[in-house]
Amino acid sequence: MDLSRLAVHTITNRPWSPRECIEHYADAGVRGITFWRRDFEGVEPDWMGKTARDAGLAVNGLARGGFFTSEEWWDDNRRALDEAVAVGAPQLVLVCGGCHDKTLETARAVIAERLATLLPLALAAGVKLALEPLHPMYAAERSALNTIAQAHALCEALGSPSGLGIAVDVYHTWWDPNLEPGIERAAQLNRLFAVHVCDWITPTTDLLNDRGLMGEGCIPLRTITAACERAGFGGFYEVEIFSNRWWATPQEAYLSEITRAFSACL
Amino acid sequence: MDLSRLAVHTITNRPWSPRECIEHYADAGVRGITFWRRDFEGVEPDWMGKTARDAGLAVNGLARGGFFTSEEWWDDNRRALDEAVAVGAPQLVLVCGGCHDKTLETARAVIAERLATLLPLALAAGVKLALEPLHPMYAAERSALNTIAQAHALCEALGSPSGLGIAVDVYHTWWDPNLEPGIERAAQLNRLFAVHVCDWITPTTDLLNDRGLMGEGCIPLRTITAACERAGFGGFYEVEIFSNRWWATPQEAYLSEITRAFSACL
Repeated sequence: MDLSRLAVHTITNRPWSPRECIEHYADAGVRGITFWRRDFEGVEPDWMGKTARDAGLAVNGLARGGFFTSEEWWDDNRRALDEAVAVGAPQLVLVCGGCHDKTLETARAVIAERLATLLPLALAAGVKLALEPLHPMYAAERSALNTIAQAHALCEALGSPSGLGIAVDVYHTWWDPNLEPGIERAAQLNRLFAVHVCDWITPTTDLLNDRGLMGEGCIPLRTITAACERAGFGGFYEVEIFSNRWWATPQEAYLSEITRAFSACL
Repeated sequence: MDLSRLAVHTITNRPWSPRECIEHYADAGVRGITFWRRDFEGVEPDWMGKTARDAGLAVNGLARGGFFTSEEWWDDNRRALDEAVAVGAPQLVLVCGGCHDKTLETARAVIAERLATLLPLALAAGVKLALEPLHPMYAAERSALNTIAQAHALCEALGSPSGLGIAVDVYHTWWDPNLEPGIERAAQLNRLFAVHVCDWITPTTDLLNDRGLMGEGCIPLRTITAACERAGFGGFYEVEIFSNRWWATPQEAYLSEITRAFSACL
């Protein structure tokens, strides 16, 4: 895959400040950047967005809103939308929230209801909402939305507005027997808003922060990106890697590995 | 749930020898036992089966065969069938094998093909085969079969013989939006061979050995067992808990907790 399709999430290089991310990404030929809300601690998002664009990077999105099963969901999502507008991100990635002390069924109903409440605000702000199904191992704590099929159903339950779509992360979905049809359907309906890439390594020793660089694991990346391309996806492939192992290494060399792996494995 | 429906997997009390399991289970009012193949190291399975039955326990099954993506799959499954016959287990639980260095698609095809080869032997031996879908977090290393829907499809691809069915483990499947319909369909088709219970705790700190006792986590056990009962399931609910935490405690007190939790939470 050509580097013109490469975006990187700032969390991937967690040891760097967002400003360092911008500089290094631009130098390395990365074309898009996805900010994380933590990047705005002590920094104005509008300044951050301008800095990225001035460096030649497209601001591809903002991670993360959602968390609909938490008490602060309303204020938190309003702030996230404001930040998305300020940084110039066309979309906000939503991690929908786990079931915690609710049943999954209840949590899923709460997610649908609160998403419906948030949606008009997002549409009015011109910020698209990208539902990210998370791996079933996060159903309790992070997201009761766990498959692409569920994300499609949720879009449809809300009337399939053009501002609501799906972020497919290969880490969360590679195991799904319905992955390819789900991707194809999303792309055909202009609902495939984002594709996140990394790899699943074995053994996985930490549920959160033990992701692999593309090529280190068993995810058939080229098969998945081919499905995206066939269905007409034209956006960025976003590298999003949580990895204690990689975070402990020199980040410049790591970024070189990322661009190399992106070209070689996608 | 009445204790007459309680079976326990010997692995649940890993610190005990299988003979200690038999004695303590019988004393505690447990009615069924599921052996693990490791129980037969240095012990004849026919003697073990007789000892369990003499103590008043039904031998409910043998765990685990399958692992179709390993090189030793054929010899290993033949031995497992022999052991199931010898111990008097009516069914062998199959963990189908991960994708390892194959793609998931290839692994799934290999599983179907090798299962088809094994099936006639199992039918001839009078041992039922219970396909156990494993949680998607085990797709790489342990099982490319990850949902009840996939297990149904596999049964049907092989002609739906009466000796082939599904073991539903709540740990692996609780997140699945299609869990209840999958259970109901399995029970109605006499394909629900086994139900394994435990709980999903948060945070989960180990992908393998951090399961919870029923009631410690977020799995809606009563909702799930109600679905099983409604659909006509009349078998044991088998307690299968891998837990470093519980294994480090005195096992007699733990077994009391198991019977208490079984009555209280199912």
